[in-house]
Amino acid sequence: MKISLPSGKSISVAPQTSILDALEMEGIYLTSSCGGKGVCGKCKVIVRSGDVDRRSTIKLSQEEVEEGYALACQSYPLGDIVIDIPKESVLTVEGRIATGRSKDLLALLQSLGVGIEPLSERILLELPPPTLTDNISDLERLKRELMAKGLGCLRVPFRSLKGLAGVLREKDWQITISLIHSEDCHEIINIFPGDRRSPRYGVAVDIGTTTLVLYLIDLTDGTLVDAASIYNSQIRFGDDVITRIVYATEHNELRALKQAVIADINIMLSMLIKKHGIEPDAIDQIVVAGNTTMTHLFLGLDPSSIREEPYIPTANTFPISFAGEHGIKARPHTPVYVFPCVASYMGGDIVSGVIATRLHKQEELSFFLDIGTNGEMVLGNSEWLISASCSAGPCFEGSGIKHGMRATEGAIEDIVIDRDTLEPRIKVIGDVRPMGICGSGMIDAISELFLTGILDQKGVLHKEASRRVREGEDGLEFLIYSDDDREIVLTTPDIENIIRAKAAIYAGFTTLLKEVGFTFNDIHKIYIAGGFGKFLDIEKAIILGMLPDLPKERFEFVGNTSIKGAYLCSLSRRLRDEAEEVARRMTYLELSVSKSFMDEFVSGLFIPHTHIEDFPSVSALMKR
Amino acid sequence: MKISLPSGKSISVAPQTSILDALEMEGIYLTSSCGGKGVCGKCKVIVRSGDVDRRSTIKLSQEEVEEGYALACQSYPLGDIVIDIPKESVLTVEGRIATGRSKDLLALLQSLGVGIEPLSERILLELPPPTLTDNISDLERLKRELMAKGLGCLRVPFRSLKGLAGVLREKDWQITISLIHSEDCHEIINIFPGDRRSPRYGVAVDIGTTTLVLYLIDLTDGTLVDAASIYNSQIRFGDDVITRIVYATEHNELRALKQAVIADINIMLSMLIKKHGIEPDAIDQIVVAGNTTMTHLFLGLDPSSIREEPYIPTANTFPISFAGEHGIKARPHTPVYVFPCVASYMGGDIVSGVIATRLHKQEELSFFLDIGTNGEMVLGNSEWLISASCSAGPCFEGSGIKHGMRATEGAIEDIVIDRDTLEPRIKVIGDVRPMGICGSGMIDAISELFLTGILDQKGVLHKEASRRVREGEDGLEFLIYSDDDREIVLTTPDIENIIRAKAAIYAGFTTLLKEVGFTFNDIHKIYIAGGFGKFLDIEKAIILGMLPDLPKERFEFVGNTSIKGAYLCSLSRRLRDEAEEVARRMTYLELSVSKSFMDEFVSGLFIPHTHIEDFPSVSALMKR
Repeated sequence: MKISLPSGKSISVAPQTSILDALEMEGIYLTSSCGGKGVCGKCKVIVRSGDVDRRSTIKLSQEEVEEGYALACQSYPLGDIVIDIPKESVLTVEGRIATGRSKDLLALLQSLGVGIEPLSERILLELPPPTLTDNISDLERLKRELMAKGLGCLRVPFRSLKGLAGVLREKDWQITISLIHSEDCHEIINIFPGDRRSPRYGVAVDIGTTTLVLYLIDLTDGTLVDAASIYNSQIRFGDDVITRIVYATEHNELRALKQAVIADINIMLSMLIKKHGIEPDAIDQIVVAGNTTMTHLFLGLDPSSIREEPYIPTANTFPISFAGEHGIKARPHTPVYVFPCVASYMGGDIVSGVIATRLHKQEELSFFLDIGTNGEMVLGNSEWLISASCSAGPCFEGSGIKHGMRATEGAIEDIVIDRDTLEPRIKVIGDVRPMGICGSGMIDAISELFLTGILDQKGVLHKEASRRVREGEDGLEFLIYSDDDREIVLTTPDIENIIRAKAAIYAGFTTLLKEVGFTFNDIHKIYIAGGFGKFLDIEKAIILGMLPDLPKERFEFVGNTSIKGAYLCSLSRRLRDEAEEVARRMTYLELSVSKSFMDEFVSGLFIPHTHIEDFPSVSALMKR
Repeated sequence: MKISLPSGKSISVAPQTSILDALEMEGIYLTSSCGGKGVCGKCKVIVRSGDVDRRSTIKLSQEEVEEGYALACQSYPLGDIVIDIPKESVLTVEGRIATGRSKDLLALLQSLGVGIEPLSERILLELPPPTLTDNISDLERLKRELMAKGLGCLRVPFRSLKGLAGVLREKDWQITISLIHSEDCHEIINIFPGDRRSPRYGVAVDIGTTTLVLYLIDLTDGTLVDAASIYNSQIRFGDDVITRIVYATEHNELRALKQAVIADINIMLSMLIKKHGIEPDAIDQIVVAGNTTMTHLFLGLDPSSIREEPYIPTANTFPISFAGEHGIKARPHTPVYVFPCVASYMGGDIVSGVIATRLHKQEELSFFLDIGTNGEMVLGNSEWLISASCSAGPCFEGSGIKHGMRATEGAIEDIVIDRDTLEPRIKVIGDVRPMGICGSGMIDAISELFLTGILDQKGVLHKEASRRVREGEDGLEFLIYSDDDREIVLTTPDIENIIRAKAAIYAGFTTLLKEVGFTFNDIHKIYIAGGFGKFLDIEKAIILGMLPDLPKERFEFVGNTSIKGAYLCSLSRRLRDEAEEVARRMTYLELSVSKSFMDEFVSGLFIPHTHIEDFPSVSALMKR
């Protein structure tokens, strides 16, 4: 049996193999955030001809089934078939990230004045062959040469001895030794015959709760070769860290969660090395940044105590481990560096973000804000760092919002309500038919609804204010968009969710400031990291009362700083040392048990805020 | 199907299972030095009733087959059977070793003034449970407690983090931590819930080329619990180290050689722990001493360069490895300490022997001589140590000698030739019908033949001197023993072999002495280690010209010092440090390329020696 693809290519397929598996074997990956269980509905293909056994179509509409759509994971060819793969089903390698950013990243690295020092060092050695008068053992010969090169302490794990005799003699006593520096000692990682100083590549991974980003880096010169991004397939076990911890704990499925994220990394890695013709053996290190729960799940560490008071992770700093211990497809002893975390809800992704923004090196006081699936913030400068996680929840990523979605094609990212007609004008990512509303769209919507009086300060919709306000299933709702067969609304529960999220973020700011006795006026900069950064309208976020009422120039969008920091630390030992130091000296304030935070949070449940005097620019707008 | 045993016990057996395998599954081990290949003929059983498929009987005589004998490894029950197991087929646990020696060994340990310090330390910790105000991670909590106990550097391997959260909470924050000291740092080996400071046992193994000895030691008080001994089943790949290296190299069978010795260790270990009701988990360390080749094969290190000039081992010192890396049946991270070696032909067994005899701590000059499958010697004192391996070959263990055998039951260990009748009187180990002649018997035989004039100084038999000298297949031979159907002879090639071996040993002594400018008169003591020690008649060995002509009281039999040193080092870090130091400061003289040795060797091919003036007592005897 074979499957013919739109490209004209045919692939053979064994009986009882799903289309998804058959495509994967050929290196064609489809989006599949449920891991092939038929419940996410993302791996749609269109069967143009031939018979297919569709074992489940529950995620397809009647219309789609009639048009030939099938879920690749649930569909088994019964003979030769011809298929089309819709663009949205293809797992995309975001090559654009790479091409544009490589120069900027290299420039940033150079501006920091660091040399290229990957996790391991490769040293070329030419050993003098043994003679009867110089008959020390192979190991002593190796050690003697390394000592002569000025290496002090050297740790040789037992496994390095295996095959040593052969490796030394294979290329006539020329070898390349790979060493890692740990705790004031060097440890042998690998010994290769001959000159193997290049090629060597590093992988940097940002494990987001929702999305993983992987950078492939040339370790010889620091070039960002390419990048890939994929949904975290742990999503099938739950949207946020808490539900995943519960799943891992109560279903005893830590292994499944670990395997899901490892599989995601392996898929991206395989795609990129295939694309660039790189041997898996040339992957020489892996650097991982993620929040504390993601880090625990990646490492296979029991996350259950993270969830329960007093919120204790197994560890905040992690010894070097190896690809083989995790099932990552590289040489088994490829070292894996994991960013240190600060506390259960302040992870390595934020430490990485601090490294990328250089906040910890500046005299002036700055805020770092990362709104992803969680909302984390850091306040500080070169002298001190204090942080908090404000449990904003994943609503800005679309979760818990009726028509919420992430900031991808089809998302309403921008809404303006005409002051006269009270009709909304929307802007959709990719200029396509809208499918939902993303975080920046939600912020726009609420601030516009508020400014036009459709929504009051308490977040209540007023039916009389607009004909677009109507009764829905869950109380009043605002109709943002409609066409023949699609409506996009913002419901009362949506609005409540968004207000709670913005209140939590703003309360985080004020609680941290209070804790250290500063005010917003002392803040030099607010770095805004995270997926929705570039689409965010600062002014509208201020109107909403999510961001403090400061001049616009004090805000800076910094994008995904977790992957950026992981890139930097992939290439510099000094920066890795800095990351350890940042994690060590960052104080974490547990907001969930803070009386002060609760008070601030309640005050923030108004638009823009109970203390309207703190929002003079909004106040002025309201008066207009 | 079942097999009924003489004990009355019955064991069930699956179809297509050999009797050997069926017995092993029940913990009944038979001698099987060929590993079940049907070529050693040692696993004989007698089938009293029932049908058996005998796939090979080549190692059985026609008479044996008629009597019902079968090779257990080659015989498959075809229904219920009843068998007898001859005593000699049963792999024996030499319990006698243990009961007698435990007190002596403990006394020796105490006399050295060392405390009991096994490879790893077990520390009981009671951690304060975390609270909101003391909310550091589990790992930091553990480290804080260990630092408070004065531990400086602490290395935590990644695997220790796995399951840490659960272990800490299982017994309410009471844990036992197992730490190993290496390179000025402590490393976590295991973490147990609750108080697990005892029971814990250590295993010490002497890997001899021919025989393995295993001691089971109670690590809480140093008691020798029991001991076992087994033939090294690598014998099926060759008798001596060289043939095994060739086998490993040319047949690419390093794995098979490693597995053979690991299987031997596992058999002994299983037997002993079963006998004493010890859990495999309570085995807490393994200490191994062996010559350099045995050490390489045990560790799975390529031994090929050991054999070829300039004779280079992979390593002489070995990092701690773990039971799981070798396939030893204990917890995977049970540490394995391997005695350091000095050179390709001067191994850890000799270093262990030096530790046991304390030669390296004495002011006076002593020799240490170990005649096993090889002949190694050390000369030195507390200031210096020089060593050599004199390639005596395994003839004193019976190899290469027509009726040679090891010093076990049935071996002629003592021969006196009546000066009047010229008839030999023999003494047989176990007072049974003689089966062959062991090393001490060979030495006795030749010195007696020489003193009675049947053999001349050149080692030539004289037919006219005795009616027991006769023509054999390989020239003249001397009939030592005969009965109705058995004859035991010493052939001309046997005699040549023995003379070459004794010449090599004596030449070793003199070459070493010359090298450092001393004479035999400066020697305070000659320690004689190795299997045949206790049966050796010093005077006859002097007559043969194997040992120097010194007063008898300067010789001391010290038995198996390799296992004794392994026992001591199992219990003391100071002694392990001493072993490393002994290995480091011991000089090795490569005799095979020494002109001086060759001259001495040739001079030693006479009885007792070309330089008869060096043997005044023999000279006097000859004159009588």
